Amino acid sequence: MEEQVLKPYVIGLDLGGTNSVFGIVDSRGNIKATTAIKTQGYDTVEDYVDAAVNALQPIVDQVGGLEQIKAMGIGAPNGNFYNGTIEYAPNLSWGHDGVVPLAKMFSERLNNLPVALTNDANAAAIGEMTYGVARGMTNFIDITLGTGVGSGIVINGQMVYGSDGFAGELGHMVVRPDGRSCGCGRKGCLEAYCSATGVARTAREFLETSDEPSLLRDMNPEDITSYDVSVAASKGDALANRVYTFTGELLGEACANFATFCSPEAFIFFGGLTKAGDLLMEPLKKSYDAHVLKIYKNKAKFLISSLEGSSAAVLGASAVGWDIK
Amino acid sequence: MEEQVLKPYVIGLDLGGTNSVFGIVDSRGNIKATTAIKTQGYDTVEDYVDAAVNALQPIVDQVGGLEQIKAMGIGAPNGNFYNGTIEYAPNLSWGHDGVVPLAKMFSERLNNLPVALTNDANAAAIGEMTYGVARGMTNFIDITLGTGVGSGIVINGQMVYGSDGFAGELGHMVVRPDGRSCGCGRKGCLEAYCSATGVARTAREFLETSDEPSLLRDMNPEDITSYDVSVAASKGDALANRVYTFTGELLGEACANFATFCSPEAFIFFGGLTKAGDLLMEPLKKSYDAHVLKIYKNKAKFLISSLEGSSAAVLGASAVGWDIK
Repeated sequence: MEEQVLKPYVIGLDLGGTNSVFGIVDSRGNIKATTAIKTQGYDTVEDYVDAAVNALQPIVDQVGGLEQIKAMGIGAPNGNFYNGTIEYAPNLSWGHDGVVPLAKMFSERLNNLPVALTNDANAAAIGEMTYGVARGMTNFIDITLGTGVGSGIVINGQMVYGSDGFAGELGHMVVRPDGRSCGCGRKGCLEAYCSATGVARTAREFLETSDEPSLLRDMNPEDITSYDVSVAASKGDALANRVYTFTGELLGEACANFATFCSPEAFIFFGGLTKAGDLLMEPLKKSYDAHVLKIYKNKAKFLISSLEGSSAAVLGASAVGWDIK
Repeated sequence: MEEQVLKPYVIGLDLGGTNSVFGIVDSRGNIKATTAIKTQGYDTVEDYVDAAVNALQPIVDQVGGLEQIKAMGIGAPNGNFYNGTIEYAPNLSWGHDGVVPLAKMFSERLNNLPVALTNDANAAAIGEMTYGVARGMTNFIDITLGTGVGSGIVINGQMVYGSDGFAGELGHMVVRPDGRSCGCGRKGCLEAYCSATGVARTAREFLETSDEPSLLRDMNPEDITSYDVSVAASKGDALANRVYTFTGELLGEACANFATFCSPEAFIFFGGLTKAGDLLMEPLKKSYDAHVLKIYKNKAKFLISSLEGSSAAVLGASAVGWDIK
C-alpha cells in the first residue's frame, strides 16, 4: 500500500480503432487529466508511440511528473496480456501484420514505468471490478455490447487470460449452428446477433420477411442502425420492439450456456446496446430463467455497468495498471 | 512439505450411485490399500457414514493409523466444494431431498481430519493435474464421457467452482438449440449426444432413419449400448463408424465453443467412451480445427486421460484431499 500512497496515479490508454484516449486516474476512478491522439495515420508503431508520449507529457506534468505515476494500463484490440503485445490487429495500420510489443515500448519511453496491456473487453471487466458494480465480486462475466460483442471473465478474483492471453471471446461462441455469417469467417456467433450491427441486421431481416408497418420502413434498410431501432422502439414501434426482444432472448440463452462454465455471481453488460435498458434486459432475464440449468436458477445478478459514458474505456484501461502485481 | 513427509497418505472416496470405493493413496498416486461399501441401502446418512468408517478402519490401520493420513477427498454427485455438502443428489437414497454435510460428518468421525468434497468430474480434473497427463498444466478442461458428460475446468492452476460451488457443467451446454431432450429437462445439451447413452441414441436414430445394413440390426434397438456400437465399429460396420464420427464431430464443435471461454492448453478426455480411441478422437480433432476461432487454431492439445481404469475415480477423489490448502 505504501507505494500506492507515494504514487497515487496510473495512466490509462484506451486504444481504439480511431482515437487513442489517455487519462491519469486515481485509485477511486477519478480522472485527473486527459488527452488524445489519432490512432491511425502513422507509418510505424514507433511514430505512434512518439506522438503518444509527446501528448502524455503535459498531463503527466500536470499531476506532478512520472514519479507520481505507479503504472500504465492499455486496453487495445488483439491485446495479449501475457506478452504485452498487440497481435495481428486487423484495424490498426501499424499493427495488422505482426506482433507489436507495445507495453515494452511505452515502458522504455516512460522511464521503465510498469505497463500492462489487454484487450478492451478484459479492460472493461477489470475496470468494473476496480471502480464499478463488480467491486468485491470474485466470479463474474462482463459482456461488452458494442459494434461487436466482447467479454471479460473473472474467476476466483482473477482475469481469465487462458493459455495464450486471448481467452474470453464469448462473442464468438456459436449460438446458432449454421446461423448468420460472422465477421470472423464462421457462422452463428453470438456477435452476429447481439451486437449493434446484429441488432440492425435483425431489424432488416424482420422488415424483409413481413409487411408489418414500422417507422423503420421510412429508412433505407442499409442505413438502419441499432440506435434507429431503439428510437423507433421508444416510440412504440412494435417491430422495433420485437428486434430488442429477439436480441435479449438470444443473449439470455447464451448467458444460460455461459453459466455452465463458471456459474458467475453476475453478468455485467457494458457498451452502447445497454442504453436500450429494459427493452433488452427484461427479455434477457426472462430467457435466462427459462433456459438455465436448474441448479443455477435465481443465482446470477444481471447488472448494467456503472462505468457507462465516454470515460469508461479509459477507466477500464487504467484499472489494468492498478492490477499489475 | 514437512507435513506431507510426516503424513504421507490421503484417503480418496469415489462415491458412486452404486458403490463407494475408498483408497489410501500416496503423493505419487500409488494406491496403498482399498476397500468398498454399497452406497445405497442405508436409512440415513449417519448409517452410511458409520458403515464407511467401519470399512475404513482396517485399511487405515494397515498404513499405520490416522496419524499417517493428511486429509480425505471425496468425489460425489452434486458435491459442493465450498460447503463440503452433497445437495439434492437424485440418485442417492440418503441424499436426494436435502443438503448433506458429508465432509463435516467424515471429519468428525475421523479425528477432525481435513475433508474436502467436490463432484466426480471436478475430482477427475484434480486427479489429472495431480497424477495424470495434466501435471504442470494451469489451464485445461477435463471432460468425462460416461453415462453422462461431466467436466472439470482448471484456470490459472485453480479448479473453477464458480460463485456457488457448482461450476463446470459443460455437459449441459446447449449445442443444438431445440435438439434432443436431455435428462436435465432441457433440450440440445451436449450430454444428450456425446455421452454413452447419447451414442446409443445416435445409433438407434441412424438405424431408424436408414435401411443401411449393420451388425447392430441383429439387436433389439433398446438394448444397444455404446459398447455394442464400438464393437460393431471395430468390425468395420459402416453405420457404427458413422455414429462415432457424428459423436466426435459434435464434441469437436463443442470444444471449439469452450475455447472461446478459457483458451485451454489442453482438452483431456476421461471415461468409458474414450475407449473408442481414434474412432472418436480423429473426427473430434478435425471438427475442432474446422470450427475453432482463428486465434485459437493449432494451440490446444487433445489428450486421453492416463488415469483410465477402475482406480481412476478413487485417485481423482484422493487428489481433492492433496489439494486442501
